[in-house]
Amino acid sequence: MKLIRWGMPDQEKTGVIINDIWYDTSAFGADYNEVFFQNDGLTKLADFVKENEGKLPVIPADTRLGSPVARPSKIVCIGLNYADHAKETNAPMPPEPVIFMKSTTSLTGPNDNITIPKNSVKTDWEVELAIVISKKASYVDEADALDYVAGYVLHNDVSEREFQLERNGTWDKGKGCDTFAPLGPFLATQDEIADVNNLRLWLTVNGKKMQDGNTSNFIFNIPFVISYVSQFMTLLPGDVISTGTPAGVGLGFNPPVYLKAGDVVELGIDGLGTSKQLLVDYVKN
Amino acid sequence: MKLIRWGMPDQEKTGVIINDIWYDTSAFGADYNEVFFQNDGLTKLADFVKENEGKLPVIPADTRLGSPVARPSKIVCIGLNYADHAKETNAPMPPEPVIFMKSTTSLTGPNDNITIPKNSVKTDWEVELAIVISKKASYVDEADALDYVAGYVLHNDVSEREFQLERNGTWDKGKGCDTFAPLGPFLATQDEIADVNNLRLWLTVNGKKMQDGNTSNFIFNIPFVISYVSQFMTLLPGDVISTGTPAGVGLGFNPPVYLKAGDVVELGIDGLGTSKQLLVDYVKN
Repeated sequence: MKLIRWGMPDQEKTGVIINDIWYDTSAFGADYNEVFFQNDGLTKLADFVKENEGKLPVIPADTRLGSPVARPSKIVCIGLNYADHAKETNAPMPPEPVIFMKSTTSLTGPNDNITIPKNSVKTDWEVELAIVISKKASYVDEADALDYVAGYVLHNDVSEREFQLERNGTWDKGKGCDTFAPLGPFLATQDEIADVNNLRLWLTVNGKKMQDGNTSNFIFNIPFVISYVSQFMTLLPGDVISTGTPAGVGLGFNPPVYLKAGDVVELGIDGLGTSKQLLVDYVKN
Repeated sequence: MKLIRWGMPDQEKTGVIINDIWYDTSAFGADYNEVFFQNDGLTKLADFVKENEGKLPVIPADTRLGSPVARPSKIVCIGLNYADHAKETNAPMPPEPVIFMKSTTSLTGPNDNITIPKNSVKTDWEVELAIVISKKASYVDEADALDYVAGYVLHNDVSEREFQLERNGTWDKGKGCDTFAPLGPFLATQDEIADVNNLRLWLTVNGKKMQDGNTSNFIFNIPFVISYVSQFMTLLPGDVISTGTPAGVGLGFNPPVYLKAGDVVELGIDGLGTSKQLLVDYVKN
């Protein structure tokens, strides 16, 4: 199943994608949030979709998409999880995963504008595969970790490198600005993805290919990451873990290349669709 | 006003403290959460309490207290905000605040047990004054910062030093374990506190005084901290900012002293009450 949320920001309704057509599932009566995942919403939604086959309203294809999951309790990220990216940022190969957190206020739709923060000169991109958690996870064994996965989703882990690395720590400072977590277009349930540890992922800036990697190059793979994070904090249904980015971020160029207003970032992962964001300057509301 | 939440974990009801007596305000009909603060709940609650003077049910004094605010969107913390604490941890004086985040799943009642995480040998204490945000805050000027404060609350920023400092970053890894954020006993609204930048705060372990500081020794004071954090992420109503700890944590002793099952931590801040936690070992549920 492919889940979407659509409509105006903070007023999103729910939907599913079947054969590339977007269907409105708001009659199902539950947002895709913590309670939904906790109460086996994925199974119930699949039943609802089956029962209503041919009767669900079609959503116009030009409709805005929101994040396919409602605001989670947390967005946990893994740093430096591809050897090529660790190398380009001059970071040593991590002996164990780096964990940081993005403020959930950074969450935005997959094709919404990215706002360059006030006083930012080093806004950067990071295509990532993100995991959505299906049930409460604490001290999970690696062998059982995939039982805790609702599905996967494309994520641009937008990062302000000066805030992240030059403003006296920690990384969280450069990761949680508004619009820094475009998520989607859709949440793909596990059955949609044949091998999550072998997916191509890419990102372009103004049409130029910047990142072109494969999740087969993970230093720490998905079961390990879920198990690992769950040793340090309890994951709740709907929580998001973003699994790190391959080489090709702006920081890795010599000299570095950062985003400016008017730039367009496009990204994608095999089986998880594509997203596209326009960079805009901060304007006071 | 002094706000409390009381009753069984995850089923807390609301209350207020007036002249040391706990009153049930559940008839007010709203939990102390994001929506409550967003909708000027503090003013409405004060009106409700006034209208129902003498008629509110009394809560037995042996009732369990929960966190006085319901789970916020985030718990942001300031590291090394007292000069004496920066010195004891061998950290340089910060040129600007260190920011890190605690998983909101770490939130617990002020007198609940603290669970020593599995595989932990360096669980430590940190008495802190925490700010609760009253309204959406982004790029707030220091001069306006106190307009965004709902009130203040006592917080034990429990920290696992090995996870925080020796497990390949970032600090978040050692800050968000379950039960690592005992908050309360109560949220004191701003009018209850004459000068928040001049409050004594202290912590004992098994009756022995370990921390004894004063918020007058903040490196970065409360208006600065709110303004600063709001440059990097948007704060939502009900969000918590914890403002750092004075000297006297376990890590600062030579050799360091860490918590073990059976230890009792007590802490307090002038005007914000006291809390008391028993340390217990992790037991699989």
